[in-house]
Amino acid sequence: MAGSNRSGFSEDELLASIRKVLSGEGPGVVVGPGDDAAVLERGPGHSVATADMLVEGVHFDRGLTSARDLGYKAIVVNVSDVAAMGGSPRHALVSLGISRDVAPSWVIELFGGMRAACDEYALALVGGDLSGAPQVVLSVTVVGEVSEGHAVLRSGARPGDRIVVTGTLGGSAGGLLLARSGHPAATQPWGRELLEAHFRPAARVGEAATLAQAGATAMMDISDGLLLDLSRLCAESAAGARIDLSRVPVARQLAELSRVTQADPLELALSGGEDYELLATIGPGAVGDAAAKVDKRYGVPLSDIGEIVEHGFVAVDAAGRERPIEPRGWDHFGGE
Amino acid sequence: MAGSNRSGFSEDELLASIRKVLSGEGPGVVVGPGDDAAVLERGPGHSVATADMLVEGVHFDRGLTSARDLGYKAIVVNVSDVAAMGGSPRHALVSLGISRDVAPSWVIELFGGMRAACDEYALALVGGDLSGAPQVVLSVTVVGEVSEGHAVLRSGARPGDRIVVTGTLGGSAGGLLLARSGHPAATQPWGRELLEAHFRPAARVGEAATLAQAGATAMMDISDGLLLDLSRLCAESAAGARIDLSRVPVARQLAELSRVTQADPLELALSGGEDYELLATIGPGAVGDAAAKVDKRYGVPLSDIGEIVEHGFVAVDAAGRERPIEPRGWDHFGGE
Repeated sequence: MAGSNRSGFSEDELLASIRKVLSGEGPGVVVGPGDDAAVLERGPGHSVATADMLVEGVHFDRGLTSARDLGYKAIVVNVSDVAAMGGSPRHALVSLGISRDVAPSWVIELFGGMRAACDEYALALVGGDLSGAPQVVLSVTVVGEVSEGHAVLRSGARPGDRIVVTGTLGGSAGGLLLARSGHPAATQPWGRELLEAHFRPAARVGEAATLAQAGATAMMDISDGLLLDLSRLCAESAAGARIDLSRVPVARQLAELSRVTQADPLELALSGGEDYELLATIGPGAVGDAAAKVDKRYGVPLSDIGEIVEHGFVAVDAAGRERPIEPRGWDHFGGE
Repeated sequence: MAGSNRSGFSEDELLASIRKVLSGEGPGVVVGPGDDAAVLERGPGHSVATADMLVEGVHFDRGLTSARDLGYKAIVVNVSDVAAMGGSPRHALVSLGISRDVAPSWVIELFGGMRAACDEYALALVGGDLSGAPQVVLSVTVVGEVSEGHAVLRSGARPGDRIVVTGTLGGSAGGLLLARSGHPAATQPWGRELLEAHFRPAARVGEAATLAQAGATAMMDISDGLLLDLSRLCAESAAGARIDLSRVPVARQLAELSRVTQADPLELALSGGEDYELLATIGPGAVGDAAAKVDKRYGVPLSDIGEIVEHGFVAVDAAGRERPIEPRGWDHFGGE
């Protein structure tokens, strides 16, 4: 049963290399990587915990992403989920399955990317698991904290609330399209920005805390596309929504992309997924103040794109025409 | 990007079915499955957190294990890691990747098995992630708690300490051999006991707490084989070990197994792995009391199998002959 993979390194040898890049001695870490489990100090509030799995061939392509970007993104998508509850990330655990063709240097780079994201968002990588697998699989759990009674759920939206989103949408899906196309526009500034949106997304931790303080009634991050995620928020809140399509903040680089591909910028913004922007609802009187604070503190725009209604799910176009929305977006079974 | 797998169920539909079997409303669960993240109450002690990944074709064979047993075991192996720190499990998160040939009923059974293990060990399944994958991948994180300053690490063993193990060893590896052989002995009581040891292992939560209270200086669970795991404990403790092979508690059913296969019972007990028994070190004066308590409270034997020494890693056989040990066991890259 003893063995090593084709690259000739054993589990224990690789684990020893990985431990060197882990931040096991961060604040609150009593026992870091290397024992049966990590031991962590607890703050006074509640814990916030989330897990997300990235599978090669489904969520990423090893030919398109660097190990460093993949590790970075794996942390960010979980940090984004903690942020979307109004919480602060504290600790991460990683389970990694690697195939036999993966070089040790690739794994070290992957952990380097995770470490960079952990440093960026002030959390510690405290443990995990390493095993063989037919292809690369990366499962990250992030545990954070939120003040008691201050978590912002998906279920709190009420008719009359405004629907707001941070940043711009569609950039990540546009970046993926561009990466797959191999189009030389990838070297231009707008092309590089789209690639960055896909491979190095940001989590809106401070923005989420600001929205929570400003009175957001419901909040989630946009991982599977605006319309699909909004339909989930509405289902949890037992309400409907009316979206003003002309106010959806479409990533400006998509106009350039649409000149070199068949991409429809609005379609990418509505259903593209993986933007990790925040989708929130908030009383109409609080929108202006929230937008000013998010802009002032983080330089990030907050767009008011519509209203929560009693029922129904409709879009209004620039000409004022209404049409029912059929939510579409990333379905994790369907792949891309 | 919208889609469904070949069985015709969407992610949201399956998630709705799974949520029905989840224990999202257990004690301490403020927000359970269905939001961006779970929100959990914190106790006064420290958190204990561990993650483990099970990959089809590496850690299990869908033709040999039932979905229910697989789900049960996925929780138990993580509970065992929390127990081995002296902690109590509280909450579990699950990331599941499923291939297109997996039926919804299989997934529901898998979650049913996880729920059964969570009920058995008094923890709540509070969230996770579901996605497509080329084969089934299951990553579980368990978070628990331990009193401040009471975690039992791998690094605390000191020369003179006795080395103890709970229960018997080799049964899990014997069960896997038997399952793969397809031998009709699988229908006999001893055969069924070996299969149970492999497919439905127990985590020694109460036993670990008892050993911690009795003064265990180091502790871990035996997941990769006694010798390999003991070599890790010794490395962390900067010490050596001297094992009395005649005192290693070999699962009695392996004698029967060795009559119908080529299996060597002692070899399976030393290097078989996946027994999830506890390996601990404890001062010589405390062994008797610890063994009496573990037996009285849980009906589980505690065997004294050797001694921690300054350096070196040797085995003594029944005739008193010494030989150096070459640790062997499950390497997660090598497969089986």
